[in-house]
Amino acid sequence: MKGTVLYGPGDIRFEDRETPKIIEPTDAILRLAATCVCGSDLWPYRGLQPIDGPTPMGHEYCGFVEEVGTAVKSIKPGQFVVGSFATSDNSCPHCQYGYQSSCIHREFMLRAQAPFLRVPQADGTLVPTPGGPPSDDLVPNLLACSDVLGTGWFAADAASVKPGGTVVVVGDGAVGLLGVLSAKQMGAARIIAMSRHDARQKLAREFGATDIVAERGDEAVARIKDMTKGIGADSVLECVGTQESMMQAIGAASPGGYVGYVGVPHGVEFKGEQLFYRHVHLHGGPAPVRRFLPKLIDLILNGRINPGKVFDLTLPLDQVAEGYRAMDERRAIKTLLRP
Amino acid sequence: MKGTVLYGPGDIRFEDRETPKIIEPTDAILRLAATCVCGSDLWPYRGLQPIDGPTPMGHEYCGFVEEVGTAVKSIKPGQFVVGSFATSDNSCPHCQYGYQSSCIHREFMLRAQAPFLRVPQADGTLVPTPGGPPSDDLVPNLLACSDVLGTGWFAADAASVKPGGTVVVVGDGAVGLLGVLSAKQMGAARIIAMSRHDARQKLAREFGATDIVAERGDEAVARIKDMTKGIGADSVLECVGTQESMMQAIGAASPGGYVGYVGVPHGVEFKGEQLFYRHVHLHGGPAPVRRFLPKLIDLILNGRINPGKVFDLTLPLDQVAEGYRAMDERRAIKTLLRP
Repeated sequence: MKGTVLYGPGDIRFEDRETPKIIEPTDAILRLAATCVCGSDLWPYRGLQPIDGPTPMGHEYCGFVEEVGTAVKSIKPGQFVVGSFATSDNSCPHCQYGYQSSCIHREFMLRAQAPFLRVPQADGTLVPTPGGPPSDDLVPNLLACSDVLGTGWFAADAASVKPGGTVVVVGDGAVGLLGVLSAKQMGAARIIAMSRHDARQKLAREFGATDIVAERGDEAVARIKDMTKGIGADSVLECVGTQESMMQAIGAASPGGYVGYVGVPHGVEFKGEQLFYRHVHLHGGPAPVRRFLPKLIDLILNGRINPGKVFDLTLPLDQVAEGYRAMDERRAIKTLLRP
Repeated sequence: MKGTVLYGPGDIRFEDRETPKIIEPTDAILRLAATCVCGSDLWPYRGLQPIDGPTPMGHEYCGFVEEVGTAVKSIKPGQFVVGSFATSDNSCPHCQYGYQSSCIHREFMLRAQAPFLRVPQADGTLVPTPGGPPSDDLVPNLLACSDVLGTGWFAADAASVKPGGTVVVVGDGAVGLLGVLSAKQMGAARIIAMSRHDARQKLAREFGATDIVAERGDEAVARIKDMTKGIGADSVLECVGTQESMMQAIGAASPGGYVGYVGVPHGVEFKGEQLFYRHVHLHGGPAPVRRFLPKLIDLILNGRINPGKVFDLTLPLDQVAEGYRAMDERRAIKTLLRP
């Protein structure tokens, strides 16, 4: 088969690779229905995160089970499954605590921008769609669960979004936009999306944003304070991962408010004293997507949410390099790839 | 009257000062039954926190209302009251949210190591003991509410201590010890106190600690992991405020666990990426003592808790300099001063 490999900044190649096969008895092999490019893939693509030689790419996936290892019990060939970007046994103490992305058997997935994928810890990582394989038009929605929706949902969960609450979302990438959708599902009364990009503002509003703020940094914080009678927001979702976005998030929260951060921090530092006197709750990390998968799949199959709308570009998998370029140049919010 | 003033490192003087009087109509004047020296007073006393000229000291207090301003409604002369180290109107949005120590009218108290004290925002800051003035033997317990117990309680609250949970307390000062007491009151099943000091270990056990860990730093974290089957603690109370203690606290928490930090951070820095992959909840700040005062006073008057045991040295107020010295040299956990 052919698969996606990053050779260096801007250098994505779709090239011959070995077709994956079962290695551990807990593995499954999937034939992917779809995969995609993640905002976090852009860090190494842009040379902002070092890579250690040619690196196979992709960690979002859904598709059909082709084969399972001898120890796999609940996952069966023919099922349509969605899995998290982080593998989990779903039974260790960290998993039982709801933090499957800190599972003692965690591996961060790679190699998913390919037609076939080996998934370790299949029983604990994959969730089959109930009622058999879905119709093809639901595939983008289901694919979104694998990371971008699961991560936006975790941001809202970590930010303790509650019915009637005021929410700020920092970041208008796909995760931020699905953070808006998640906050809406959790009953937020007011959702302020930070964006200065027309198409993204529009989608934010479609997902439930009630207000848009285009300012950044201290000006953005002042604007939020102004909009909330000087109080700040109950919940802030930080979906970028830079120092500026994090300080903006902390500044936008009310004393006692919650900041949920899911943008992988790049060079972010907090001063203890600053956090102390801001009185915010801070929680985040790699999203425990597995915790949310059954609920998210259910919301999709019942037509309650359409997270797949974040995919505004669909390409055949062999055009993956163009998929990266379009996102890098902000021509696309998120690229879906069809094998 | 005479009051306590810090002139420089190690230089505490008890000297003539103006007797306080009503300035704002929302003020009250108290005749103190007791005051004390706080662990946080030791930072400037040790020269580890700069002071801007001679600084009047003291922020923990309880006593009798002498006089109130014309706008004070609920507080009346003759009442015995306990107040927080941070003033609050107890009605602004931050107060209503439970963060009275971020009140829009907040002032951090000073000048309480004196026989008389002016308290701004008297209605929102002070809580009278129900049923009239307490017997004198309860004064140390009630004094503890003003900061050290309120702060230990907030550490446990911020660390989300739950019935049956496993708790680690970093710091064996008075706040840490009362963090142990608070965790016990909240139903923790296992409370691991970090201490290498006999008298403090003994008091920690008396307050409810089930285990003592004497190691520090990485060794302490390894020991906690070992004691919790590799999982870490559900809740960690950080009651020191140094980089080492904070990293120890974060390291001791399970993924998804909670760190409540109340030690005023001195030079503490967090790396975003490190926090991200540890998956901890982080919350802290100056304790909103006012939120907890009615409950804490009730627990004391009903004989359920004896937080005043942290005062292992009682001196007449004019010997305040010795009170500081004894704490600085760790001869005393906490010094109570009687005017």
